[in-house]
Amino acid sequence: RINSARLWDSLMEMAKIGPGVAGGNNRQTLTDADSEGRHLFASWCRAAGMTMGVDTMGNMFATRAGTDPDALPVYIGSHLDTQPTGGKYDGVLGVLAGLEVVRTLNDMGVKTRHPIVVTNWTNEEGTRFAPAMLASGVFAGVLEQDWAYDRRDAKGLRFGDELERIGWKGTEKVGARKMKAMFELHIEQGPILEAEGKEVGVVTHGQGLRWIECTVTGKGQHTGSTPMYLRRNAGRGLARVIDLVHEIAMARQPNAVGAIGHIDVYPNSRNIIPEKIVFTVDFRSHILETLEAMVAEFNARAPGLCAEVGVKFTSQLSGWFDPPAFDENLVKIVRQSAEKLGYSHMDIVSGAGHDACWINRVAPTVMVMCPCVDGLSHNEAEEISPEWAAAGTDVLLHAVLEVAEV
Amino acid sequence: RINSARLWDSLMEMAKIGPGVAGGNNRQTLTDADSEGRHLFASWCRAAGMTMGVDTMGNMFATRAGTDPDALPVYIGSHLDTQPTGGKYDGVLGVLAGLEVVRTLNDMGVKTRHPIVVTNWTNEEGTRFAPAMLASGVFAGVLEQDWAYDRRDAKGLRFGDELERIGWKGTEKVGARKMKAMFELHIEQGPILEAEGKEVGVVTHGQGLRWIECTVTGKGQHTGSTPMYLRRNAGRGLARVIDLVHEIAMARQPNAVGAIGHIDVYPNSRNIIPEKIVFTVDFRSHILETLEAMVAEFNARAPGLCAEVGVKFTSQLSGWFDPPAFDENLVKIVRQSAEKLGYSHMDIVSGAGHDACWINRVAPTVMVMCPCVDGLSHNEAEEISPEWAAAGTDVLLHAVLEVAEV
Ligand SMILES: NC(=O)NCCC(=O)O
Ligand SMILES: NC(=O)NCCC(=O)O
Repeated sequence: RINSARLWDSLMEMAKIGPGVAGGNNRQTLTDADSEGRHLFASWCRAAGMTMGVDTMGNMFATRAGTDPDALPVYIGSHLDTQPTGGKYDGVLGVLAGLEVVRTLNDMGVKTRHPIVVTNWTNEEGTRFAPAMLASGVFAGVLEQDWAYDRRDAKGLRFGDELERIGWKGTEKVGARKMKAMFELHIEQGPILEAEGKEVGVVTHGQGLRWIECTVTGKGQHTGSTPMYLRRNAGRGLARVIDLVHEIAMARQPNAVGAIGHIDVYPNSRNIIPEKIVFTVDFRSHILETLEAMVAEFNARAPGLCAEVGVKFTSQLSGWFDPPAFDENLVKIVRQSAEKLGYSHMDIVSGAGHDACWINRVAPTVMVMCPCVDGLSHNEAEEISPEWAAAGTDVLLHAVLEVAEV
Repeated sequence: RINSARLWDSLMEMAKIGPGVAGGNNRQTLTDADSEGRHLFASWCRAAGMTMGVDTMGNMFATRAGTDPDALPVYIGSHLDTQPTGGKYDGVLGVLAGLEVVRTLNDMGVKTRHPIVVTNWTNEEGTRFAPAMLASGVFAGVLEQDWAYDRRDAKGLRFGDELERIGWKGTEKVGARKMKAMFELHIEQGPILEAEGKEVGVVTHGQGLRWIECTVTGKGQHTGSTPMYLRRNAGRGLARVIDLVHEIAMARQPNAVGAIGHIDVYPNSRNIIPEKIVFTVDFRSHILETLEAMVAEFNARAPGLCAEVGVKFTSQLSGWFDPPAFDENLVKIVRQSAEKLGYSHMDIVSGAGHDACWINRVAPTVMVMCPCVDGLSHNEAEEISPEWAAAGTDVLLHAVLEVAEV
């Protein structure tokens, strides 16, 4: 069993970097706080006797050597970046649990045939630079590195420039590493495990995602002196599309979700009718056909709904991944580890996207989940218990040992 | 007749300060550009032999002496501040037309019994600091100066601090001046004069306004892993309220308008369901009962519509003025001036708010309007012709001379 107190202390230590305003974190990717968090993680890895490699996307790989120089490494990873109003566990748990696995093996003097590599993937959240899971996507060869470098945040800053600025652009070629397997422990970010009273989720599948960046264009006019019949109010288009997204998701319950989280209004003045509104639709389903049907219905109906209120609708896909099915053999190993350790468990589908969804395409991959209070995540009030964190990490330890070979 | 070329040159000269991104202006109140515009105006006033007074709200008063030391001054004024994506004429025309009236009198060596004062009112637009017409409101005694100083912009900066910072907080007690009359020339900002083929609008009345700052509160949750039934999406409340505002205005055509121009979403992340949305509703009518009925209907229905979609609605009034009726005698003088000069004219109701709406409460006040292309304003593409500007300023000259007594 892992050292639960040490794991929790590390989580709390990391949470001091980039504090939020309500008890959580604002340690967004490629900020100074992100850099500071990376330094802290690197120092812990050094202290645990690991060597660090950093690739050209800023992904960090801390290696504990194996006994067989030819054996492929087993990876454990997640992300240290957070939402602007994020929790202390989303992503962080998966990275620090990997470190705790290594610390535990060190304590026990256990050597493995395969090296173990603990990874921090860059920009998983996708809130500062869309899409999410950007760097694991480049690693997996689904996204181009140059395209990734050109992503811009709301201030117009480039991903590539910001990566250099914070000093974490490494030299290692991204995606060059071969993996025996990749494990990701993550909080569920949904309500199911807690509601079912299970300590561990064995993740068999995940939802797929489509992000659609939409622009509704009207005409910026005076709110007082422009007669109603002359108006082209982009806000009315937004209202139609908000309702449409909800309707499309509700029509496919319980197999789909949909919402708009990001909305920018231009020029955003109290007495100017909105000229332009840019917003991102987030659709998800664990069934590919459902996901594609949602997007098709959306694309078919949104322009017409906006035209009805006199405004123009355009859109482009800004994030996407198909529903992943994780490696069946690794899923079995995780399930057996939970069983062996006596933790209550259930199979579960991941509602969120994770780096594991991309790495799954280039290596056998699996995820372990732990419950979170009220299913609340992407909120500073996100909470888990030390016992839940320990249970998930114990399962991770035993599953990794199974694959890395003692 | 005034010097049309000189008026136009001054308009174009002023428009070089705080240029926009599409041919218009971004010279928002209490910015460095606002200060620069004020200095330019002050230098022109000095060159025209006028003396400048500045009050504690930053209102500028440039005086051309009269022949009778006991005669109350006649005021001509409007504002030099602009929207973030504003035009070159909204407000500016009224100030520089006042200056052109004085320059013309100087050219012709005409003296008046009453002094003439050309005024630039601070923060008419209300986009950086709500409400609009803030400083004329304090001048007229309807708003408190200390309350005005405490208004904050989107960055949290105080009006009072910014006024000091740009160096235009004067020493004169605000509202101490007594006026024989106040004239404001302004572009129509609506389509009526152009559609009717009239060169001059004689403004008899104005619309009243209510600004309602609303907050819709849901719960910031993960857009992917939160099941639909658990969500409290503030965006759905916003959609309902956008529709409600439109419906309330449409039900009272052609006597009312309504829209939401300003919307801020928190935390505004692509994969977080909106936790909170703050926005401002703008309702207007030239009939007080209609205006009050709109607000009453809105307050009665908005909370329930939001509750139906599981989110909380709160609001507070953040701007207000009742429909003004301008001074009947001055209205007659303006109409007669247009007639005498041979300009086509019509009576008109102002759709926008103006400093004249507040000053109307403490002095006989009237407005003159000139057409603008396509009724477009609060847009960088706002346009007028030099002929329209000259016609309005000619009418202003003759009306002012009538009151100021040659
Ligand atoms: N796990 C997580 O919150 N990832 C961010 C990407 C997503 O929106 O699913
Ligand atoms: N004239 C003008 O645009 N004033 C700004 C205040 C308003 O919104 O009416």
